[in-house]
Amino acid sequence: MKVDGKPYRTIWLNDDGWSVEIIDQTLMPHRFETVTLKNLEAAAHAIKAMLVRGAPLIGATAAYGICLAMRADDSDEALDRAYDTLYATRPTAVNLRWALDEMRAALRNRPRGARVAAAYARAEEICDEDVEICQSIGRHGLKIIREIAASKPAGEPVNILTHCNAGWLATVDWGTATAPMYMAFEEGIPIHVWADETRPRNQGASLTAWELKGHGVPHTVIADNVGGHLMQHGKVDLCIVGTDRTTASGDVCNKIGTYLKALAAHANDVPFYVALPSPTIDWTVKDGVKEIPIEQRGGEEVSQMTGRTAAGAIETVTITPDGSPVANFAFDVTPARYVTGLITERGVAEASREGLAKLFPERVR
Amino acid sequence: MKVDGKPYRTIWLNDDGWSVEIIDQTLMPHRFETVTLKNLEAAAHAIKAMLVRGAPLIGATAAYGICLAMRADDSDEALDRAYDTLYATRPTAVNLRWALDEMRAALRNRPRGARVAAAYARAEEICDEDVEICQSIGRHGLKIIREIAASKPAGEPVNILTHCNAGWLATVDWGTATAPMYMAFEEGIPIHVWADETRPRNQGASLTAWELKGHGVPHTVIADNVGGHLMQHGKVDLCIVGTDRTTASGDVCNKIGTYLKALAAHANDVPFYVALPSPTIDWTVKDGVKEIPIEQRGGEEVSQMTGRTAAGAIETVTITPDGSPVANFAFDVTPARYVTGLITERGVAEASREGLAKLFPERVR
Repeated sequence: MKVDGKPYRTIWLNDDGWSVEIIDQTLMPHRFETVTLKNLEAAAHAIKAMLVRGAPLIGATAAYGICLAMRADDSDEALDRAYDTLYATRPTAVNLRWALDEMRAALRNRPRGARVAAAYARAEEICDEDVEICQSIGRHGLKIIREIAASKPAGEPVNILTHCNAGWLATVDWGTATAPMYMAFEEGIPIHVWADETRPRNQGASLTAWELKGHGVPHTVIADNVGGHLMQHGKVDLCIVGTDRTTASGDVCNKIGTYLKALAAHANDVPFYVALPSPTIDWTVKDGVKEIPIEQRGGEEVSQMTGRTAAGAIETVTITPDGSPVANFAFDVTPARYVTGLITERGVAEASREGLAKLFPERVR
Repeated sequence: MKVDGKPYRTIWLNDDGWSVEIIDQTLMPHRFETVTLKNLEAAAHAIKAMLVRGAPLIGATAAYGICLAMRADDSDEALDRAYDTLYATRPTAVNLRWALDEMRAALRNRPRGARVAAAYARAEEICDEDVEICQSIGRHGLKIIREIAASKPAGEPVNILTHCNAGWLATVDWGTATAPMYMAFEEGIPIHVWADETRPRNQGASLTAWELKGHGVPHTVIADNVGGHLMQHGKVDLCIVGTDRTTASGDVCNKIGTYLKALAAHANDVPFYVALPSPTIDWTVKDGVKEIPIEQRGGEEVSQMTGRTAAGAIETVTITPDGSPVANFAFDVTPARYVTGLITERGVAEASREGLAKLFPERVR
């Protein structure tokens, strides 16, 4: 999407044809800086230190990490080492493993000497496939926004609430939850996005607000506490969020706090949609609440906050009393009954086994 | 309650018999400092700049502000000026007006010369009455906690979730929502409090955590997004929150985000109680969602965050992108159907016109 008028992806090849450029998302929203990755170690660091984040972008970065490793040494041993190094950066990221497996499959049994070119070709495909998936999600979600716009007085914006960042910064381009919003905006449908701050890591206040602003999409940052009040007063026409993992029965695991918004949407008859690429559906899990373990992260994400001082420095401050314990559950599960629909690259599915079976008959027996 | 073992109220007369001591709550949770009020202006500033906050404590501070004004000039004109000065500090605070009216009624028609003593006497009564109300709320809420404790395996803590700060720091002592917790703790019932951070002003992370810690009550600070997940997994036995204004039909206006927790409690069969002194019931309002206007405050409360740097300085940082709009709704309304009970100084009422009529027959016709 655009940053102040200029189109960007989140990862791209430089003009030299081999080095890889990424956006350093740890500096957001205060600075827009890109970083050049020239070797495996730099790619691994970018993932581990969260310069890049979001499942699809992590996968794409890992794919290019393999390319950079192959440039230095295209042996089987180097391939295995690169795989292991990259996999160790964020072992719970499903897309990371998938991208690494794809790259290994594309290079194994291929003569040395042909591997570098094959790696770059497959990495480029992985990126392009991600963009296509996001665009398809966008097109299917766009229909929903179009319908709501048609039901409102002409010129009145469609108010969309989103949580966390399932935006283009989490993917290669377009995003998942944001793709329908960007497509509606491009089509000239008046929209306005309520961006949940998304404590404790503030990805809404920092990343979602930043990317919407860069592309020129009207939006407002709100505390996570506000969505219920807005829905109660008719100020939200629909919610669209992303997901880290969706179960075969349509339960949705996403950033902590998603469940509270789904409850509020349900209580106030606001449609609640979840946008997802189908590879994030975990066909082995039936009951998300019972079966999905919820990661607990470091308490400092809650007790500390990083931002920009009046003098322009990036500073971290502690907001809790010394010695008060802190808990930091990273995700929650929204049961399928609160989800109006799952926006996938194949279309919008009802959030149920039956709904998913219609779109993915090959996966549901 | 206690601060590191020593009992405190939030406002008290100094040994000189006339100057008034308060805790500067703007420095919390990083510093514990008290401030001496020696004149009307200091009292007005303490309320306006939120060194003191919470309806009962604002009322008590205003009462002592009248005392300090009377010491300087006990004429009718000075009384009127003091009333107006104090009322202008936070004109939407119901208790402020009530306390000022009480003080004026106690001083009018009384000879000059007798007014200073009468003022101090009435201010002391106002404080003591507030403590009594909170203790009564505590005793009625304690019964609820006792029952839940009895239903759990011996030694397992009763997990109580609270939002914002309806604690002793908001009152003269004990607090409203916290009074049952402190009483249970004093009685030796094992309890553990989940303290919602309460964005955007963080009163949970700063004030509630601080006062629970000072008194030694086990607690954990969580992001506002977490409560739904905890309730879904049986980690909350009951919620107790405060309220700024309760309607005659039991709708509860409280700090933004309360409604989301009530929805989660309802969805997961967790009892959701609201603790309140009966003067905060607005008998003129029937439908809280439709009739109560919700204050919007400055966006900087959302876009900025104040805390303690590693070097120990208090610093404010901006967390949103430059130029991203911010909205800051301060309160929301929880409809009565999501409220298990209203814990008042007269007992626990069902959150309905009928429930309130049983406890307050003189107010409900």
